Amino acid sequence: MRAMLKNYSKNCNDKTSALKPALCAAALCAALLAGCSSSADTITLTAQGAYAAGGSVIEAKEPYDPYHPKAEGMSLHGDHVSVLYQIPEHARALPVFMLHGAGQSARTYMSTPDGRDGLQNILLKHDYAVYLIDGPRRGQAGRSTVPAELTASPDNEFWYGQFRMGLYPERYTGSQFPEGSKALEQFFRQMTPATGSYDAVLSGEGIAAAIEDSGFDGGIVITHSQGGSAGWQAAMISDKIKAIASYEPGSGFVFPEGEVPAPIANHSFFGDFAAEAVPLEDFMALTRIPIVIYYGDFIPKAESDNPHTDYWRAAVKMAREFAACINRHGGHAQVIELPDVGIHGNTHFMFAERNNAEVIDQLLSFFAQNKLDAKAK
Amino acid sequence: MRAMLKNYSKNCNDKTSALKPALCAAALCAALLAGCSSSADTITLTAQGAYAAGGSVIEAKEPYDPYHPKAEGMSLHGDHVSVLYQIPEHARALPVFMLHGAGQSARTYMSTPDGRDGLQNILLKHDYAVYLIDGPRRGQAGRSTVPAELTASPDNEFWYGQFRMGLYPERYTGSQFPEGSKALEQFFRQMTPATGSYDAVLSGEGIAAAIEDSGFDGGIVITHSQGGSAGWQAAMISDKIKAIASYEPGSGFVFPEGEVPAPIANHSFFGDFAAEAVPLEDFMALTRIPIVIYYGDFIPKAESDNPHTDYWRAAVKMAREFAACINRHGGHAQVIELPDVGIHGNTHFMFAERNNAEVIDQLLSFFAQNKLDAKAK
Repeated sequence: MRAMLKNYSKNCNDKTSALKPALCAAALCAALLAGCSSSADTITLTAQGAYAAGGSVIEAKEPYDPYHPKAEGMSLHGDHVSVLYQIPEHARALPVFMLHGAGQSARTYMSTPDGRDGLQNILLKHDYAVYLIDGPRRGQAGRSTVPAELTASPDNEFWYGQFRMGLYPERYTGSQFPEGSKALEQFFRQMTPATGSYDAVLSGEGIAAAIEDSGFDGGIVITHSQGGSAGWQAAMISDKIKAIASYEPGSGFVFPEGEVPAPIANHSFFGDFAAEAVPLEDFMALTRIPIVIYYGDFIPKAESDNPHTDYWRAAVKMAREFAACINRHGGHAQVIELPDVGIHGNTHFMFAERNNAEVIDQLLSFFAQNKLDAKAK
Repeated sequence: MRAMLKNYSKNCNDKTSALKPALCAAALCAALLAGCSSSADTITLTAQGAYAAGGSVIEAKEPYDPYHPKAEGMSLHGDHVSVLYQIPEHARALPVFMLHGAGQSARTYMSTPDGRDGLQNILLKHDYAVYLIDGPRRGQAGRSTVPAELTASPDNEFWYGQFRMGLYPERYTGSQFPEGSKALEQFFRQMTPATGSYDAVLSGEGIAAAIEDSGFDGGIVITHSQGGSAGWQAAMISDKIKAIASYEPGSGFVFPEGEVPAPIANHSFFGDFAAEAVPLEDFMALTRIPIVIYYGDFIPKAESDNPHTDYWRAAVKMAREFAACINRHGGHAQVIELPDVGIHGNTHFMFAERNNAEVIDQLLSFFAQNKLDAKAK
């Protein structure tokens, strides 16, 4: 910028022509604009930071003695969520709150395994404020009020299968999962253990608290996999949740008492796929907001003896019953299997794969169709 | 911006004077610059993302059988670091790699407990690219190749004392730690457990790998507390570490074999404060880069029966022996106790306290004095 101004100063202070300054002004103008407008690849933030929300406390039972510290004299804060937020310039009115799945953290929404923009950056570049959540007892929100034993047992290949990348070491034909050992290693290294048992209600309270403490009047919730159950719980707790987009929820579907479908038999290692009962009054919260549920590819339509993929057949079936139940009660829920809309080859991590721009376009359309994309006034 | 241009167009197309266009060009120039340069409160990023670096693998001992998964047929990637990076526009040539202390994660450098800009944002606003590291077996880098038992034992008050905020629930007089229960709660909730034992060499390898994989030719390393030991190890592994600023290192000081000082007796719960021996050849790496070590306030000059603060008396004493040893071998290390330079009231988390701007000015001066602040060419 300074070089440009210096150049302008040198060339444009020649007063031999009355017109020249005006022409130079136009040239300067163009140069300044080229130099100062952020390109499509930059992100300008008016704020970013982190905070904890929700959680519980184990209170001390007696005063602390610094000379003889003992557990009874001490307290513990745990079970909160840890939130990383970024507000872009000209942000839309509704921010997006994103919760990861099992064995993952907020890291799930950052760079893709092959190092491209993840959902976080793509939403920022579409002017959405993003709130990335580490759920209770996970990642940077690791303090738990319940103990846990971490076994360090090898399990990469199990998750590779369960996430429908293929049957290790094979890839399913046409897979959109980033290719090569480097990307796969990055993926394995983005896994991170639960530091306490998963609790959908606790996680839902965490999402609700994250929105409450954000200063925004409401937000869109995006969940993945296990986090899906937390999304439904959050919407039943807080009316600040204005919409939910759920990538491949795989457990914790809720139905009104008396309307819970029978568990769905399948060939997975997780037993029959069961749903949970909640009071109808609570369930009705899910009928008051738009909900979209996405599933990817490689999910069998009929019973399969592949234990990893047959799980997802059951999940999709339950998700369709869930959406039907919401809609029967007056709501607006839809289940989209990406192959049905012409998007093929996606695994469980569709938002982080080679075609993630196309996958996320679906999400942006959902936002637009439901008028969730208004600019802040 | 558009309104400004329209206004310019309206007022400046009057050709009654040969001089007017030039004057208008100057006015336009000022207006454009005012409109397009981001304010001091915004951060424009040309890139941000996350990656894993370093780490090890437990290899599978036999092929994976998806129908009968067992541990022997599976692998595990663990012990890596997880890195969150942000590159600001007009970034300086050397990025900053930041590792947290015990019971902390990269979260330590984000917002302060009272919600203001932490070291991350302040460095970005000074045009430094930042690389925030979750060390091996911590936070979002939680996958460990060794098992761990998490007890969820209450310990807030112990760390409150050990971090020199006061003797719970009292604050030391003049403390710069953010006031009020809300800030203290945020602080307690930014703690997160180790998901495997701490290993200074492993953590040092993680820092070195993070720099190696960043694409930069070198970086400045900032460490806190326990992370200090990883900083020294990293510099002995990689010549891409161009400087180290260490906030309150509290363990893992290294000395050449034969020059290790006697352990320093103290009244803490951690026993005598001991240092470690390394080959002289390795140690010499620490003499080739500028090193600064900062300590805060409330550290007794003479032996104290306060077990929490007496620990730090021993740490400062060992740090001074460490710096003297580096300098004796031709290096450039300094220990700065902030009260000695007129900065009072800081606890162990000086970079996140009420006077953090002043504390971080010291760091920026260290960068400038050592010519670490050059702009990228």
